[in-house]
Amino acid sequence: MTLSRSLHHFPLDPASRQVRLALGEKRLLFSEVSERYWEPKTSLEEMNPSGLTPILVELQSAQRLVICESRAILEHLEEQYPQPDLLGPDPATRAEARRLVQWFERKFDNEVNAYILYEKMDKRLLGLGAPDMANLRQGRENLRAHLAYLESLLVNRDWLAGPRLSQADFAAAAHISVIDYFGDVPWREFSAAKTWYMKIKSRPCFRPLLADRWPGLAPSGHYDNLDF
Amino acid sequence: MTLSRSLHHFPLDPASRQVRLALGEKRLLFSEVSERYWEPKTSLEEMNPSGLTPILVELQSAQRLVICESRAILEHLEEQYPQPDLLGPDPATRAEARRLVQWFERKFDNEVNAYILYEKMDKRLLGLGAPDMANLRQGRENLRAHLAYLESLLVNRDWLAGPRLSQADFAAAAHISVIDYFGDVPWREFSAAKTWYMKIKSRPCFRPLLADRWPGLAPSGHYDNLDF
Repeated sequence: MTLSRSLHHFPLDPASRQVRLALGEKRLLFSEVSERYWEPKTSLEEMNPSGLTPILVELQSAQRLVICESRAILEHLEEQYPQPDLLGPDPATRAEARRLVQWFERKFDNEVNAYILYEKMDKRLLGLGAPDMANLRQGRENLRAHLAYLESLLVNRDWLAGPRLSQADFAAAAHISVIDYFGDVPWREFSAAKTWYMKIKSRPCFRPLLADRWPGLAPSGHYDNLDF
Repeated sequence: MTLSRSLHHFPLDPASRQVRLALGEKRLLFSEVSERYWEPKTSLEEMNPSGLTPILVELQSAQRLVICESRAILEHLEEQYPQPDLLGPDPATRAEARRLVQWFERKFDNEVNAYILYEKMDKRLLGLGAPDMANLRQGRENLRAHLAYLESLLVNRDWLAGPRLSQADFAAAAHISVIDYFGDVPWREFSAAKTWYMKIKSRPCFRPLLADRWPGLAPSGHYDNLDF
Protein backbone atom coordinates (compact mmCIF):
# COMPACT_ATOMS: atom_id res chain seq x y z
CA MET A 1 0.00 0.00 0.00
CA THR A 2 1.63 3.22 -1.17
CA LEU A 3 0.96 6.08 1.24
CA SER A 4 2.31 8.91 -0.82
CA ARG A 5 3.78 9.44 -4.26
CA SER A 6 5.57 12.40 -5.83
CA LEU A 7 6.89 12.99 -9.32
CA HIS A 8 9.93 15.17 -9.97
CA HIS A 9 9.51 16.41 -13.50
CA PHE A 10 9.83 19.26 -15.97
CA PRO A 11 6.47 20.22 -17.53
CA LEU A 12 7.80 20.40 -21.11
CA ASP A 13 9.98 17.26 -20.93
CA PRO A 14 8.41 14.54 -23.13
CA ALA A 15 9.67 11.71 -20.88
CA SER A 16 8.09 13.39 -17.84
CA ARG A 17 4.83 13.90 -19.72
CA GLN A 18 4.66 10.24 -20.64
CA VAL A 19 4.87 9.26 -16.98
CA ARG A 20 2.23 11.84 -15.96
CA LEU A 21 -0.15 10.42 -18.58
CA ALA A 22 0.39 6.83 -17.40
CA LEU A 23 -0.09 7.81 -13.73
CA GLY A 24 -3.25 9.74 -14.63
CA GLU A 25 -4.71 6.94 -16.76
CA LYS A 26 -4.15 4.49 -13.90
CA ARG A 27 -5.79 7.01 -11.51
CA LEU A 28 -2.75 7.03 -9.24
CA LEU A 29 -2.61 10.20 -7.18
CA PHE A 30 0.72 12.03 -7.02
CA SER A 31 2.12 15.40 -6.02
CA GLU A 32 4.33 17.27 -8.50
CA VAL A 33 7.75 18.82 -7.99
CA SER A 34 8.84 20.93 -10.95
CA GLU A 35 12.59 20.62 -11.62
CA ARG A 36 14.96 22.87 -13.57
CA TYR A 37 17.13 20.06 -14.92
CA TRP A 38 19.32 22.43 -16.94
CA GLU A 39 20.59 24.24 -13.84
CA PRO A 40 23.79 22.78 -12.38
CA LYS A 41 24.13 21.24 -8.93
CA THR A 42 20.49 20.84 -8.10
CA SER A 43 19.19 18.27 -5.66
CA LEU A 44 18.12 16.37 -8.78
CA GLU A 45 21.53 14.71 -9.12
CA GLU A 46 21.33 13.38 -5.59
CA MET A 47 18.22 11.44 -6.57
CA ASN A 48 19.21 10.57 -10.14
CA PRO A 49 22.94 10.57 -11.00
CA SER A 50 22.09 11.34 -14.65
CA GLY A 51 20.57 14.64 -13.46
CA LEU A 52 17.52 14.02 -15.64
CA THR A 53 13.76 13.92 -15.13
CA PRO A 54 11.43 12.13 -14.48
CA ILE A 55 11.90 10.65 -11.00
CA LEU A 56 9.07 8.96 -9.11
CA VAL A 57 9.27 8.71 -5.31
CA GLU A 58 6.93 6.30 -3.54
CA LEU A 59 6.65 6.10 0.24
CA GLN A 60 5.39 2.78 1.60
CA SER A 61 5.25 2.57 5.41
CA ALA A 62 8.92 3.18 6.34
CA GLN A 63 10.31 2.51 2.86
CA ARG A 64 11.21 5.14 0.29
CA LEU A 65 11.40 3.88 -3.29
CA VAL A 66 13.11 6.24 -5.76
CA ILE A 67 12.59 5.27 -9.41
CA CYS A 68 14.63 7.16 -12.01
CA GLU A 69 14.12 7.42 -15.77
CA SER A 70 10.88 6.93 -17.70
CA ARG A 71 11.63 3.34 -18.73
CA ALA A 72 12.01 2.17 -15.12
CA ILE A 73 8.94 4.14 -13.99
CA LEU A 74 6.65 2.96 -16.79
CA GLU A 75 7.57 -0.71 -16.35
CA HIS A 76 7.21 -0.35 -12.57
CA LEU A 77 3.71 1.05 -12.98
CA GLU A 78 2.70 -1.88 -15.21
CA GLU A 79 4.10 -4.40 -12.73
CA GLN A 80 2.66 -2.85 -9.57
CA TYR A 81 -0.57 -1.31 -10.85
CA PRO A 82 -1.56 -3.52 -13.79
CA GLN A 83 -5.09 -2.11 -14.27
CA PRO A 84 -5.73 -0.56 -16.71
CA ASP A 85 -3.10 -2.50 -18.65
CA LEU A 86 -1.16 -0.09 -20.89
CA LEU A 87 0.93 -2.71 -22.69
CA GLY A 88 -1.55 -5.33 -23.80
CA PRO A 89 -2.59 -8.92 -23.09
CA ASP A 90 -0.24 -10.91 -25.35
CA PRO A 91 3.44 -10.88 -26.39
CA ALA A 92 2.78 -9.46 -29.88
CA THR A 93 0.74 -6.52 -28.58
CA ARG A 94 3.23 -5.78 -25.82
CA ALA A 95 6.12 -5.89 -28.29
CA GLU A 96 4.31 -3.48 -30.62
CA ALA A 97 3.58 -1.01 -27.80
CA ARG A 98 7.19 -1.07 -26.59
CA ARG A 99 8.57 -0.80 -30.14
CA LEU A 100 6.66 2.45 -30.60
CA VAL A 101 7.71 3.78 -27.19
CA GLN A 102 11.33 3.28 -28.23
CA TRP A 103 10.58 4.82 -31.63
CA PHE A 104 9.77 8.09 -29.89
CA GLU A 105 12.55 7.93 -27.32
CA ARG A 106 15.19 7.17 -29.90
CA LYS A 107 14.15 8.12 -33.43
CA PHE A 108 11.72 10.98 -32.79
CA ASP A 109 14.03 12.41 -30.16
CA ASN A 110 17.00 12.38 -32.58
CA GLU A 111 15.13 13.54 -35.64
CA VAL A 112 12.60 16.03 -34.27
CA ASN A 113 13.31 17.06 -30.66
CA ALA A 114 17.02 17.55 -31.36
CA TYR A 115 16.02 20.22 -33.87
CA ILE A 116 12.73 21.81 -32.83
CA LEU A 117 12.94 21.50 -29.02
CA TYR A 118 16.64 22.25 -29.00
CA GLU A 119 16.16 25.44 -31.00
CA LYS A 120 12.94 26.67 -29.37
CA MET A 121 13.21 25.40 -25.79
CA ASP A 122 16.70 24.28 -24.74
CA LYS A 123 18.43 27.33 -26.23
CA ARG A 124 15.97 29.59 -24.42
CA LEU A 125 16.37 27.80 -21.08
CA LEU A 126 20.16 27.73 -21.42
CA GLY A 127 20.44 31.29 -22.74
CA LEU A 128 22.07 30.22 -26.02
CA GLY A 129 20.44 32.79 -28.27
CA ALA A 130 17.91 32.76 -31.09
CA PRO A 131 16.76 29.62 -32.94
CA ASP A 132 18.67 28.61 -36.06
CA MET A 133 16.20 28.68 -38.93
CA ALA A 134 17.88 25.93 -40.98
CA ASN A 135 17.69 23.58 -38.00
CA LEU A 136 14.01 24.40 -37.45
CA ARG A 137 13.27 23.68 -41.11
CA GLN A 138 15.07 20.34 -40.87
CA GLY A 139 13.15 19.45 -37.71
CA ARG A 140 9.81 20.32 -39.31
CA GLU A 141 10.64 18.25 -42.38
CA ASN A 142 11.54 15.28 -40.16
CA LEU A 143 8.35 15.82 -38.13
CA ARG A 144 6.28 15.48 -41.33
CA ALA A 145 7.84 12.06 -41.97
CA HIS A 146 6.95 10.97 -38.44
CA LEU A 147 3.37 12.23 -38.75
CA ALA A 148 3.05 10.42 -42.09
CA TYR A 149 4.18 7.23 -40.36
CA LEU A 150 1.57 7.67 -37.60
CA GLU A 151 -1.02 8.36 -40.29
CA SER A 152 -0.14 5.06 -42.00
CA LEU A 153 -0.58 3.17 -38.71
CA LEU A 154 -3.91 4.86 -37.92
CA VAL A 155 -5.50 3.87 -41.23
CA ASN A 156 -5.98 0.36 -39.84
CA ARG A 157 -5.89 0.92 -36.10
CA ASP A 158 -7.97 2.76 -33.51
CA TRP A 159 -4.88 3.42 -31.41
CA LEU A 160 -1.21 3.40 -32.39
CA ALA A 161 -0.33 -0.12 -31.26
CA GLY A 162 -3.70 -1.73 -32.08
CA PRO A 163 -7.32 -1.77 -30.92
CA ARG A 164 -6.54 -0.56 -27.39
CA LEU A 165 -5.00 2.55 -25.87
CA SER A 166 -1.41 1.78 -24.79
CA GLN A 167 1.91 3.26 -23.70
CA ALA A 168 2.58 3.82 -27.41
CA ASP A 169 -0.18 6.45 -27.56
CA PHE A 170 1.14 8.16 -24.45
CA ALA A 171 4.70 8.17 -25.82
CA ALA A 172 3.50 9.74 -29.06
CA ALA A 173 1.18 12.21 -27.32
CA ALA A 174 3.87 13.19 -24.80
CA HIS A 175 6.34 14.03 -27.56
CA ILE A 176 3.93 15.60 -30.03
CA SER A 177 2.17 17.71 -27.38
CA VAL A 178 5.44 19.49 -26.56
CA ILE A 179 6.00 20.24 -30.25
CA ASP A 180 2.37 21.41 -30.37
CA TYR A 181 3.01 23.72 -27.39
CA PHE A 182 5.44 25.53 -29.69
CA GLY A 183 2.92 25.49 -32.54
CA ASP A 184 4.96 23.40 -34.97
CA VAL A 185 2.57 20.53 -35.78
CA PRO A 186 1.01 20.84 -39.29
CA TRP A 187 -2.27 19.19 -38.21
CA ARG A 188 -4.19 20.06 -41.36
CA GLU A 189 -2.03 17.78 -43.49
CA PHE A 190 -2.57 14.73 -41.27
CA SER A 191 -6.25 14.15 -40.57
CA ALA A 192 -6.04 10.66 -39.03
CA ALA A 193 -3.27 11.80 -36.68
CA LYS A 194 -5.33 14.87 -35.80
CA THR A 195 -8.40 12.76 -34.96
CA TRP A 196 -6.22 10.49 -32.81
CA TYR A 197 -4.73 13.51 -31.01
CA MET A 198 -8.20 14.97 -30.36
CA LYS A 199 -9.23 11.67 -28.75
CA ILE A 200 -6.21 11.48 -26.49
CA LYS A 201 -6.30 15.21 -25.68
CA SER A 202 -9.86 14.78 -24.37
CA ARG A 203 -8.96 12.16 -21.79
CA PRO A 204 -8.93 13.20 -18.12
CA CYS A 205 -5.26 12.17 -17.77
CA PHE A 206 -4.32 14.78 -20.38
CA ARG A 207 -5.98 17.74 -18.65
CA PRO A 208 -3.03 18.68 -16.38
CA LEU A 209 -0.73 18.89 -19.42
CA LEU A 210 -3.01 21.41 -21.09
CA ALA A 211 -2.61 23.72 -18.08
CA ASP A 212 1.22 23.68 -18.29
CA ARG A 213 2.88 27.03 -18.85
CA TRP A 214 6.54 28.01 -18.52
CA PRO A 215 7.72 31.61 -17.93
CA GLY A 216 9.12 33.08 -21.13
CA LEU A 217 7.78 30.23 -23.24
CA ALA A 218 4.20 30.97 -24.28
CA PRO A 219 2.18 28.15 -25.86
CA SER A 220 0.62 28.38 -29.31
CA GLY A 221 -2.94 29.73 -29.41
CA HIS A 222 -4.61 26.34 -29.99
CA TYR A 223 -2.43 24.40 -27.50
CA ASP A 224 -5.15 23.79 -24.87
CA ASN A 225 -8.08 23.86 -27.31
CA LEU A 226 -9.78 20.46 -27.54
CA ASP A 227 -11.30 21.39 -30.91
CA PHE A 228 -8.24 22.73 -32.73
CA MET B 1 6.90 -23.71 -27.14
CA THR B 2 9.16 -21.75 -29.45
CA LEU B 3 10.34 -23.88 -32.36
CA SER B 4 12.91 -21.52 -33.81
CA ARG B 5 14.38 -18.15 -33.02
CA SER B 6 16.57 -15.82 -35.05
CA LEU B 7 18.18 -12.49 -34.24
CA HIS B 8 18.78 -9.85 -36.89
CA HIS B 9 21.66 -7.80 -35.60
CA PHE B 10 24.89 -5.95 -36.34
CA PRO B 11 27.88 -7.40 -34.43
CA LEU B 12 29.22 -4.02 -33.30
CA ASP B 13 25.84 -2.47 -32.39
CA PRO B 14 25.63 -2.11 -28.57
CA ALA B 15 21.83 -2.64 -28.53
CA SER B 16 22.24 -5.88 -30.50
CA ARG B 17 25.02 -7.04 -28.18
CA GLN B 18 22.85 -6.50 -25.13
CA VAL B 19 20.18 -8.78 -26.57
CA ARG B 20 22.75 -11.46 -27.52
CA LEU B 21 24.07 -11.44 -23.95
CA ALA B 22 20.58 -11.78 -22.45
CA LEU B 23 19.68 -14.62 -24.85
CA GLY B 24 22.96 -16.36 -24.05
CA GLU B 25 22.59 -15.98 -20.28
CA LYS B 26 19.08 -17.45 -20.48
CA ARG B 27 20.47 -20.30 -22.64
CA LEU B 28 18.00 -19.59 -25.41
CA LEU B 29 19.25 -20.91 -28.73
CA PHE B 30 19.05 -18.58 -31.72
CA SER B 31 20.42 -18.26 -35.22
CA GLU B 32 22.07 -15.00 -36.26
CA VAL B 33 21.45 -12.84 -39.30
CA SER B 34 24.01 -10.08 -39.69
CA GLU B 35 22.46 -6.85 -41.00
CA ARG B 36 24.07 -3.81 -42.66
CA TYR B 37 21.72 -1.27 -41.14
CA TRP B 38 23.50 1.67 -42.76
CA GLU B 39 22.71 0.50 -46.28
CA PRO B 40 19.48 1.92 -47.70
CA LYS B 41 16.46 -0.14 -48.72
CA THR B 42 17.35 -3.38 -47.04
CA SER B 43 14.79 -5.95 -45.97
CA LEU B 44 15.44 -4.60 -42.48
CA GLU B 45 12.87 -1.83 -42.89
CA GLU B 46 10.18 -4.34 -43.82
CA MET B 47 10.64 -5.95 -40.41
CA ASN B 48 11.34 -2.80 -38.40
CA PRO B 49 10.12 0.54 -39.81
CA SER B 50 12.91 2.36 -37.93
CA GLY B 51 15.42 0.39 -40.03
CA LEU B 52 17.43 -0.40 -36.90
CA THR B 53 18.75 -3.53 -35.22
CA PRO B 54 18.14 -5.65 -33.17
CA ILE B 55 15.08 -7.63 -34.29
CA LEU B 56 14.13 -10.97 -32.75
CA VAL B 57 11.93 -13.37 -34.75
CA GLU B 58 10.31 -16.25 -32.90
CA LEU B 59 8.37 -18.99 -34.68
CA GLN B 60 5.80 -20.81 -32.56
CA SER B 61 3.79 -23.47 -34.41
CA ALA B 62 2.14 -21.39 -37.17
CA GLN B 63 2.77 -18.01 -35.53
CA ARG B 64 5.61 -15.65 -36.36
CA LEU B 65 6.39 -13.08 -33.68
CA VAL B 66 8.62 -10.19 -34.77
CA ILE B 67 9.99 -8.09 -31.89
CA CYS B 68 11.79 -4.87 -32.79
CA GLU B 69 14.12 -2.71 -30.66
CA SER B 70 16.15 -3.80 -27.64
CA ARG B 71 13.69 -2.52 -25.05
CA ALA B 72 10.84 -4.64 -26.41
CA ILE B 73 13.08 -7.70 -26.81
CA LEU B 74 14.63 -7.51 -23.34
CA GLU B 75 11.29 -7.07 -21.56
CA HIS B 76 9.80 -9.87 -23.69
CA LEU B 77 12.61 -12.22 -22.63
CA GLU B 78 12.00 -11.43 -18.94
CA GLU B 79 8.27 -12.00 -19.31
CA GLN B 80 8.46 -15.21 -21.33
CA TYR B 81 11.67 -16.78 -20.02
CA PRO B 82 11.94 -15.52 -16.44
CA GLN B 83 14.82 -17.81 -15.37
CA PRO B 84 17.47 -16.66 -14.77
CA ASP B 85 15.84 -13.39 -13.73
CA LEU B 86 17.90 -10.48 -15.13
CA LEU B 87 15.94 -7.69 -13.44
CA GLY B 88 15.65 -8.73 -9.81
CA PRO B 89 13.10 -9.94 -7.27
CA ASP B 90 11.72 -6.65 -5.90
CA PRO B 91 10.64 -3.22 -7.21
CA ALA B 92 13.75 -1.40 -5.95
CA THR B 93 16.19 -3.81 -7.60
CA ARG B 94 14.23 -3.84 -10.86
CA ALA B 95 14.12 -0.02 -10.88
CA GLU B 96 17.88 0.17 -10.34
CA ALA B 97 18.61 -2.30 -13.16
CA ARG B 98 16.35 -0.45 -15.58
CA ARG B 99 17.74 2.95 -14.54
CA LEU B 100 21.22 1.80 -15.52
CA VAL B 101 20.02 0.26 -18.79
CA GLN B 102 18.57 3.65 -19.72
CA TRP B 103 21.76 5.36 -18.54
CA PHE B 104 23.65 3.53 -21.28
CA GLU B 105 21.00 3.86 -23.95
CA ARG B 106 20.57 7.57 -23.39
CA LYS B 107 23.52 9.16 -21.58
CA PHE B 108 26.41 6.89 -22.63
CA ASP B 109 25.11 6.82 -26.19
CA ASN B 110 24.98 10.64 -26.35
CA GLU B 111 28.22 11.29 -24.53
CA VAL B 112 30.49 8.46 -25.68
CA ASN B 113 29.12 6.54 -28.67
CA ALA B 114 28.18 9.75 -30.49
CA TYR B 115 31.88 10.67 -30.45
CA ILE B 116 33.98 7.49 -30.41
CA LEU B 117 31.75 5.11 -32.36
CA TYR B 118 30.65 7.81 -34.75
CA GLU B 119 34.24 8.76 -35.56
CA LYS B 120 35.75 5.27 -35.65
CA MET B 121 32.88 3.09 -36.87
CA ASP B 122 29.98 4.96 -38.44
CA LYS B 123 32.21 7.19 -40.56
CA ARG B 124 34.06 4.14 -41.82
CA LEU B 125 30.88 2.21 -42.63
CA LEU B 126 29.32 5.24 -44.32
CA GLY B 127 32.49 6.30 -46.12
CA LEU B 128 32.62 9.71 -44.46
CA GLY B 129 36.39 10.00 -44.16
CA ALA B 130 38.90 10.00 -41.33
CA PRO B 131 38.03 10.45 -37.63
CA ASP B 132 38.01 13.97 -36.23
CA MET B 133 40.61 14.08 -33.47
CA ALA B 134 38.87 16.73 -31.37
CA ASN B 135 35.71 14.61 -31.29
CA LEU B 136 37.67 11.52 -30.29
CA ARG B 137 39.32 13.43 -27.45
CA GLN B 138 35.92 14.65 -26.24
CA GLY B 139 34.52 11.12 -26.39
CA ARG B 140 37.47 9.72 -24.42
CA GLU B 141 37.11 12.41 -21.78
CA ASN B 142 33.40 11.64 -21.44
CA LEU B 143 34.20 7.91 -21.28
CA ARG B 144 36.47 8.52 -18.29
CA ALA B 145 33.57 10.16 -16.42
CA HIS B 146 31.36 7.14 -17.15
CA LEU B 147 34.05 4.69 -16.02
CA ALA B 148 34.54 6.71 -12.83
CA TYR B 149 30.81 6.44 -12.20
CA LEU B 150 30.89 2.64 -12.65
CA GLU B 151 33.93 2.53 -10.37
CA SER B 152 31.94 4.38 -7.66
CA LEU B 153 29.08 1.87 -7.94
CA LEU B 154 31.41 -1.15 -7.84
CA VAL B 155 33.05 -0.09 -4.57
CA ASN B 156 29.96 -1.34 -2.72
CA ARG B 157 28.44 -3.77 -5.18
CA ASP B 158 29.41 -7.10 -6.77
CA TRP B 159 27.47 -6.22 -9.89
CA LEU B 160 26.32 -2.85 -11.21
CA ALA B 161 22.74 -2.90 -9.89
CA GLY B 162 23.47 -4.82 -6.67
CA PRO B 163 24.46 -8.27 -5.44
CA ARG B 164 23.22 -10.08 -8.57
CA LEU B 165 24.06 -10.02 -12.25
CA SER B 166 21.36 -8.08 -14.14
CA GLN B 167 20.43 -6.38 -17.40
CA ALA B 168 22.43 -3.38 -16.09
CA ASP B 169 25.67 -5.38 -16.42
CA PHE B 170 24.79 -6.50 -19.90
CA ALA B 171 23.90 -2.95 -20.96
CA ALA B 172 27.23 -1.69 -19.65
CA ALA B 173 29.21 -4.61 -21.09
CA ALA B 174 27.48 -4.33 -24.47
CA HIS B 175 28.40 -0.65 -24.79
CA ILE B 176 31.87 -0.79 -23.29
CA SER B 177 32.87 -3.91 -25.25
CA VAL B 178 32.35 -2.08 -28.55
CA ILE B 179 34.51 0.81 -27.34
CA ASP B 180 37.04 -1.82 -26.22
CA TYR B 181 36.97 -3.39 -29.71
CA PHE B 182 38.39 -0.07 -30.91
CA GLY B 183 40.93 -0.02 -28.06
CA ASP B 184 39.70 3.16 -26.39
CA VAL B 185 39.06 1.98 -22.81
CA PRO B 186 41.74 3.17 -20.32
CA TRP B 187 41.44 0.05 -18.15
CA ARG B 188 44.54 0.72 -16.06
CA GLU B 189 42.95 3.78 -14.46
CA PHE B 190 39.81 1.93 -13.35
CA SER B 191 40.66 -1.23 -11.47
CA ALA B 192 37.19 -2.06 -10.06
CA ALA B 193 35.62 -1.60 -13.49
CA LYS B 194 38.38 -3.77 -14.99
CA THR B 195 37.73 -6.58 -12.48
CA TRP B 196 34.01 -6.36 -13.21
CA TYR B 197 34.68 -6.53 -16.97
CA MET B 198 36.97 -9.55 -16.55
CA LYS B 199 34.17 -11.34 -14.69
CA ILE B 200 31.54 -10.63 -17.30
CA LYS B 201 33.93 -11.29 -20.20
CA SER B 202 34.54 -14.80 -18.81
CA ARG B 203 30.88 -15.82 -18.91
CA PRO B 204 29.78 -18.29 -21.61
CA CYS B 205 27.21 -15.78 -22.97
CA PHE B 206 30.07 -13.38 -23.78
CA ARG B 207 32.10 -15.82 -25.88
CA PRO B 208 30.34 -15.18 -29.22
CA LEU B 209 31.02 -11.43 -28.88
CA LEU B 210 34.74 -12.04 -28.53
CA ALA B 211 34.75 -13.80 -31.89
CA ASP B 212 33.14 -10.84 -33.70
CA ARG B 213 35.17 -9.29 -36.50
CA TRP B 214 34.11 -6.82 -39.17
CA PRO B 215 35.94 -6.39 -42.51
CA GLY B 216 38.05 -3.23 -42.49
CA LEU B 217 37.59 -2.74 -38.74
CA ALA B 218 40.24 -4.71 -36.86
CA PRO B 219 39.85 -5.11 -33.10
CA SER B 220 42.44 -3.95 -30.59
CA GLY B 221 45.08 -6.55 -29.64
CA HIS B 222 43.59 -7.32 -26.21
CA TYR B 223 39.94 -7.37 -27.35
CA ASP B 224 39.37 -11.12 -26.99
CA ASN B 225 41.95 -11.65 -24.25
CA LEU B 226 40.30 -12.70 -20.97
CA ASP B 227 43.38 -11.59 -19.02
CA PHE B 228 43.92 -8.10 -20.45
